[in-house]
Amino acid sequence: MDLYFLGTGAGLPSKRRNVTSIALRLHDERGTFWLIDCGEATQHKILSSPLSLSKLEHIFITHLHGDHIFGLPGLLGSRGFQAGEKPLVIYGPRGLEQFVETTIRLSETHLPYRLWVSVIDGGVIFDDEQMTVTCRQLNHGIPSYGYRFEEKPKRGKLRQTLLQEQGIPAGPIYGKLKEGHDVALDDGRVLRSADYLAPPTPGRVVTILGDTRPCDSAEELAEGADVLVHEATYAASEWERAQNHHHSTATDAARTAANAGVKQLVLTHVSARYDEEGEAKLLADAQAIFPATTLAHDHLIINVPRLPG
Amino acid sequence: MDLYFLGTGAGLPSKRRNVTSIALRLHDERGTFWLIDCGEATQHKILSSPLSLSKLEHIFITHLHGDHIFGLPGLLGSRGFQAGEKPLVIYGPRGLEQFVETTIRLSETHLPYRLWVSVIDGGVIFDDEQMTVTCRQLNHGIPSYGYRFEEKPKRGKLRQTLLQEQGIPAGPIYGKLKEGHDVALDDGRVLRSADYLAPPTPGRVVTILGDTRPCDSAEELAEGADVLVHEATYAASEWERAQNHHHSTATDAARTAANAGVKQLVLTHVSARYDEEGEAKLLADAQAIFPATTLAHDHLIINVPRLPG
Repeated sequence: MDLYFLGTGAGLPSKRRNVTSIALRLHDERGTFWLIDCGEATQHKILSSPLSLSKLEHIFITHLHGDHIFGLPGLLGSRGFQAGEKPLVIYGPRGLEQFVETTIRLSETHLPYRLWVSVIDGGVIFDDEQMTVTCRQLNHGIPSYGYRFEEKPKRGKLRQTLLQEQGIPAGPIYGKLKEGHDVALDDGRVLRSADYLAPPTPGRVVTILGDTRPCDSAEELAEGADVLVHEATYAASEWERAQNHHHSTATDAARTAANAGVKQLVLTHVSARYDEEGEAKLLADAQAIFPATTLAHDHLIINVPRLPG
Repeated sequence: MDLYFLGTGAGLPSKRRNVTSIALRLHDERGTFWLIDCGEATQHKILSSPLSLSKLEHIFITHLHGDHIFGLPGLLGSRGFQAGEKPLVIYGPRGLEQFVETTIRLSETHLPYRLWVSVIDGGVIFDDEQMTVTCRQLNHGIPSYGYRFEEKPKRGKLRQTLLQEQGIPAGPIYGKLKEGHDVALDDGRVLRSADYLAPPTPGRVVTILGDTRPCDSAEELAEGADVLVHEATYAASEWERAQNHHHSTATDAARTAANAGVKQLVLTHVSARYDEEGEAKLLADAQAIFPATTLAHDHLIINVPRLPG
């Protein structure tokens, strides 16, 4: 599990930063990646990355501002040439279904796969044996959401030595215990799965927020996360401008990270007004409050390590 | 007047060719440029070109396939930051107004300038003292148009020596004759402007076609053009595939150029299936029929010289 930053700029593309898109790569976990936001030319950035549209499984859109969605129609069309009939679900705020439907229909784009747009309004939006995704509305000029991607705990290894010590021979029973089922033996004994499994490895948590002012929802979504990806459109000195434009400064992001007790903060969505020196200052401002902070750049990879339980 | 090729690929962007967009640069003539088609990431290509969105005056869309329009919403938004309140007109087939309206509205993109979408269905769509633009429908899977950009003839220089030989003193009369007005003198003589002007320089003609099979409209739009820009999605060997997909081969384009008596042919909209060797073959096929053929690549500039009358 890692994050691949495809676009890390705000509002407009620049030569240094494209508009927003992030891939949550789940290659080891599911052999796929999920895309969070899809600014214009995201498919171009993918072309010059190790990602392949054939592995794209879901798309999560934080909000409908152009720098987060204008790459969708082209990417959806191109995906058909690589992923064939594999279905795709796009999650996002109301209006997204109209954006996708209208652009695909008017351009007569042929999609060889089934496409669903799932309109979100908070709560659990995805849950399977591996992952749970929750979203909440943030505080922006238009409805903007943050996503919390939670991996389920990984069951501990089967304690085979213990089973053998108790005279239970290897066989289908071992498999059942390993999968978490209790097993009744012919002699009446009941083996509880939990007694024969090592402690589970906790799942990882990645929180990715859409554009937002600092707010309670942001902290709640980020609670204890392994990685928090937070916008930092402006430097601390531009706090008033950030407020007026419904954005955060780098120090706003750092405070949210500290309050939520995350392990790592990654800043993205940085205004093109900052040159390298300005960006260094912006990062230093955040690190003064939350030291484990990284400033994203296009094509940055952030590993999300599995910590021992 | 020249053409700047921003994107020269077909259907999908590749590392070598972006999807379609061409700038007709009229810097000397009007201090502006016109854009023909606007595939995704056209604004990104403009960022790495000498063009500036602040000079963009009109956009002409040939047809609504995604590789010709998906760059529009982002470019329209970004233009506001550079061109301020300067109005903009987009010409294109029916449906374009809904595409623009929906994408701009749902993304809540703020345009500080007035924007008109002018729905075309053939004939003269623009005419001022300098330029005339005509369009006609071509032969594609969906309504696709070609555009003929005609510069008006440039009036010849005033023959001052002749006027002086005839004893007509320099003054406001010279200005009137120069502007094409006949002038009655106090002595009853009438000076005809045409008698005192050198022959006019003919205007230049650039024809840019949308995706199409070979057709009569293409030849009519290209009649005698200085430059014809024609799609060449496929090589001659793929003629059947070209027909089935409503496209042209390089030799189709060359035949149209020859039949229309153009001075120069530029091939664009080339499928990503061709590597450099394949493209060289594609070009050679066209040149065998029409020698004055160039194969466009991204960032190519084609000068449109003013020929003496």
